[in-house]
Amino acid sequence: MLFTQTFIPTLREVPADALIPSHRLMVRSGMIRKLANGLFAYLPLGLRAFRNVEALVREEMNAIGALEIKPPVVVPGELWKESGRWDTMGDAMLRVKNRLDGDLVLSPTAEEAVTSLVRDALASYRQLPLTLYQINTKYRDEIRPRYGVMRGREFVMKDAYSYHTDEASLDATYKAMGAAYRRIFKRCGLSVIPVRADSGAMGGRDSEEFMVESAIGDNTLILCRDCDYAANLEKASCKPDAPAQTQAPAVAAVEPIPTPGIKTIEQLCAFLKTDAQKFIKTLIYRARNVALDLSGAPGTAGLEKRQSSPEAPAVYLEAFFAVAIRGDLEVNEAKLAAILQASEVSLAADSQAARLTGAPVGFAGPVGLNTLPLVADLTVTGMQDGVTGALAADTHYVHVVYGRDFVPWLTGDLRTVVSGNPCALCGGELYEKKGNELGHIFKLGDKYTRSLQVSYLDENGQPQVPLMGTYGIGIDRTLASVIEEHHDDEGIIWPMAVAPYQVIIIPITYHGSVKAVADTLAAALEQNRIAVLLDDRNERPGVKFKDADLIGIPYRVVVGEKNLARDFPAVEVKRRGEASLRLLEVSKAEAELSRLVYRE
Amino acid sequence: MLFTQTFIPTLREVPADALIPSHRLMVRSGMIRKLANGLFAYLPLGLRAFRNVEALVREEMNAIGALEIKPPVVVPGELWKESGRWDTMGDAMLRVKNRLDGDLVLSPTAEEAVTSLVRDALASYRQLPLTLYQINTKYRDEIRPRYGVMRGREFVMKDAYSYHTDEASLDATYKAMGAAYRRIFKRCGLSVIPVRADSGAMGGRDSEEFMVESAIGDNTLILCRDCDYAANLEKASCKPDAPAQTQAPAVAAVEPIPTPGIKTIEQLCAFLKTDAQKFIKTLIYRARNVALDLSGAPGTAGLEKRQSSPEAPAVYLEAFFAVAIRGDLEVNEAKLAAILQASEVSLAADSQAARLTGAPVGFAGPVGLNTLPLVADLTVTGMQDGVTGALAADTHYVHVVYGRDFVPWLTGDLRTVVSGNPCALCGGELYEKKGNELGHIFKLGDKYTRSLQVSYLDENGQPQVPLMGTYGIGIDRTLASVIEEHHDDEGIIWPMAVAPYQVIIIPITYHGSVKAVADTLAAALEQNRIAVLLDDRNERPGVKFKDADLIGIPYRVVVGEKNLARDFPAVEVKRRGEASLRLLEVSKAEAELSRLVYRE
Repeated sequence: MLFTQTFIPTLREVPADALIPSHRLMVRSGMIRKLANGLFAYLPLGLRAFRNVEALVREEMNAIGALEIKPPVVVPGELWKESGRWDTMGDAMLRVKNRLDGDLVLSPTAEEAVTSLVRDALASYRQLPLTLYQINTKYRDEIRPRYGVMRGREFVMKDAYSYHTDEASLDATYKAMGAAYRRIFKRCGLSVIPVRADSGAMGGRDSEEFMVESAIGDNTLILCRDCDYAANLEKASCKPDAPAQTQAPAVAAVEPIPTPGIKTIEQLCAFLKTDAQKFIKTLIYRARNVALDLSGAPGTAGLEKRQSSPEAPAVYLEAFFAVAIRGDLEVNEAKLAAILQASEVSLAADSQAARLTGAPVGFAGPVGLNTLPLVADLTVTGMQDGVTGALAADTHYVHVVYGRDFVPWLTGDLRTVVSGNPCALCGGELYEKKGNELGHIFKLGDKYTRSLQVSYLDENGQPQVPLMGTYGIGIDRTLASVIEEHHDDEGIIWPMAVAPYQVIIIPITYHGSVKAVADTLAAALEQNRIAVLLDDRNERPGVKFKDADLIGIPYRVVVGEKNLARDFPAVEVKRRGEASLRLLEVSKAEAELSRLVYRE
Repeated sequence: MLFTQTFIPTLREVPADALIPSHRLMVRSGMIRKLANGLFAYLPLGLRAFRNVEALVREEMNAIGALEIKPPVVVPGELWKESGRWDTMGDAMLRVKNRLDGDLVLSPTAEEAVTSLVRDALASYRQLPLTLYQINTKYRDEIRPRYGVMRGREFVMKDAYSYHTDEASLDATYKAMGAAYRRIFKRCGLSVIPVRADSGAMGGRDSEEFMVESAIGDNTLILCRDCDYAANLEKASCKPDAPAQTQAPAVAAVEPIPTPGIKTIEQLCAFLKTDAQKFIKTLIYRARNVALDLSGAPGTAGLEKRQSSPEAPAVYLEAFFAVAIRGDLEVNEAKLAAILQASEVSLAADSQAARLTGAPVGFAGPVGLNTLPLVADLTVTGMQDGVTGALAADTHYVHVVYGRDFVPWLTGDLRTVVSGNPCALCGGELYEKKGNELGHIFKLGDKYTRSLQVSYLDENGQPQVPLMGTYGIGIDRTLASVIEEHHDDEGIIWPMAVAPYQVIIIPITYHGSVKAVADTLAAALEQNRIAVLLDDRNERPGVKFKDADLIGIPYRVVVGEKNLARDFPAVEVKRRGEASLRLLEVSKAEAELSRLVYRE
């Protein structure tokens, strides 16, 4: 391809809103342009790289027997009501009314759509296992889209869905997907950190996230210095602290003490001359769309429930909870939301909390609390001789004993793990990294197949509900991450598998014998299925070299009169990202370049 | 590919809502499934055929130097306001509010989006001509989606946009596109009727529609029995009738006559004992979003105008017009909308018409009408001794003379051409066909580049506005049309270029030597880049044959014990759509099948 016949509008200036290297370089190299906040267009150069990632993902999906389909991007809201996610997906799902007042959704993901297709076409166990995937447009109504295509509103995702007769079959596909994902990221030249949700103490269904380290990552990862423990902060757990007093001495009865004007743990520590580990901190949370059954829990009798379809789980639209945790720790809201099966949790407003507990903020506590379900972190269970708010202004209790003075409605691991905590697996020191999620594989069980009423006939002619898995990779984000990992101050350094062109040929001036050699070499390489960009522009060599470094094509071939005038006419070859130059005889250039390109 | 390893859920029953062969066959062969009205998912078999059409279109676009890009599907409403189409696109454009209250559009087409990209990146005349295209999801909020993917809500379109320094360059790309379109449809095995908008008397910009004949077509085509005149009814013209009285005798003065209770042309003909050609029928139309300048036209002084951006043309939100046409003819509303540059025209309500003309419906006429702009069809110009309503109840005028008794504000070709009218080019007899539009190429001039303020610097460093062309092909509709043209009672008969697989191998029973021959042949053909479907199902041969006919793979190879037991072991080959069977020696089967496949 001649440079003047394509459209690569490179920029010298750095776009003001581009905060990370991939965003800067994708705009500067003419790969993308912004149409609006979070909405980008791929120009020809960018689309070539994008298609390479897409093709590589497609190849690995086909290799494990996944079948490509193309569901619509716009899907009926009814499907999301059937699954119950119409209520729980939150505001990032873009909903549309069509002109007949029908509800539509711009797909952010497609569990419902694909499962409804399978529901229509699945009859027999002989059709299973079945893995369907698409590589298609998705939309998330991000409030603050940032970092170019790394966190855009519209993006392309490869999303796969598998259906199975049993756990062993689901597990086999789940493992094959995990292996395919590892190959995909490796072929893209990406160093990913696989993060298992179930590593450590957490139970539940298998899932694995594929993260890349990134200073601007959405996710905080908790890693162990001594073993390969890796978890998303949202789910990370640590080794439980040794109980302070396993054989507790007899503790005196609960006693209220006046604590006038004392509102914070720090003030209380100073006042009582003790440390924060002695305290039971009690916080009031508001949760939305709670799927956990609250029957019999205090203060939940009159809560409004909604069930969007007969098969969808009923959810409480809003519920409040008291959450007790050791005074020196923080509640992890993602863990809390998970345990409550809620779409969202947040601290209740002060006035709301005061109304629910009957005490000003700062004086809530578990003892005698009967207006709210009490959820206790594991650090609170077994606590002896604790200090808590006394549900009355300017008063705390001392000598509070877990089990004697209060019994929570629910207990679980709710603490936020921080750097320095001990690893749940090996006791080593945990530390934090920021990361971006590129892919995610997840065993769903029968959540969607049950709510969407999918069934097949088993070998005995009995109807059964299939098990399901879901597997996603963000194509745009993977591409941007390749650039994050492979660039220098001058521009991109493409790994061969993703490079939009594999060779760039720069004639010093595009005429005469220089042109003839450049044209011939380009044609010979293209014949060999190597993508070549020939910079035929009437620009100074310095401009062409700068653009070549910016665009980052792996092999740069310079054709100039001086080297052609040697006894053995030669061209100069350089690998982007390496300093050394090599001369290749013209007669051997095609063969040697082809060897170099195919070697990588 | 083994049949049991893919997912082809064929159906024996005909889906109740499938009214045309392509819809029926795409559902029955397991190519597509409906997710909701107008929203379809392509299953693996359907997607393979879809991708073939897509690849063929891409190849022809690349061959003429068009560059592929990928703009977002969701675009900001602002761009549509800049061009003025926010107001004129009508309700089929799906508009969305995001959660920040921003206006978004699900692209029905992308003149604005692509032109805004070009605006950002275009600097110099040296970058032109430039042709960009995408093959991407589009959405039209059809009220009555029908006929499967032939008229769906979501669909995929190849849309290209070209930018030029001058008319000659635009014309060259326009012609190259026209030629590429002809190649695309020919390669797909489609008989298209190219319809020029400017054929015949119509002036204006070049445009060409590529139609296929279809009983359920959206369009009515007007064709000539004697020459290659072909026009969309919306724009078709015919040879003007010879003026009845070129050298008109002196006509008496206009005279009102009482016509009590006479409301229709037929009643009037009977009453006056004359024929409908003598009458000047006057109809009151309401037009929306009129871009034509109405300054000075009667009754338009107070009309509300809107200009959505400084560069967009101002439009009248609503205006009324009196339209005069010979009594035996019908007004073509598409022609009327075009001449008024309106987004929509429709007959005014009776009460509205009566209020505007001061006369009951049936008694409107051009003489003395000064409350509305009068638009006259060419058949009215020069009319002598006509009959019209007299703008008063139960009264008509006779002896009405064009030019003497009334002068229209605007004249134009507004008549609806019908079968039997004479061809504008050769005088031959015109006839009608129903057709579906598969593609459209159109010279836009500077309409969008001017409203979106695109400019480049010419050779003298002066800013200039580029000219533009737009070129679309519906991928889904092209695919469905291939099936419409290539099927029989048993199923689809794929043309080779679009076929999802080129060869289907049916082992009578998939074991032993039959399995070995089938497997070996499939592998050899696949090695040769031929796509093979091997029906390894444990089904009766009759079921496999029926499915093979339904799916329509071009070559069917049957492997059975009887033919393998011959002196020269053989397999049986049949071209779908042909009756004859051939035996091919096993040893020669791969070579001969490859030859047959590559020959087509």
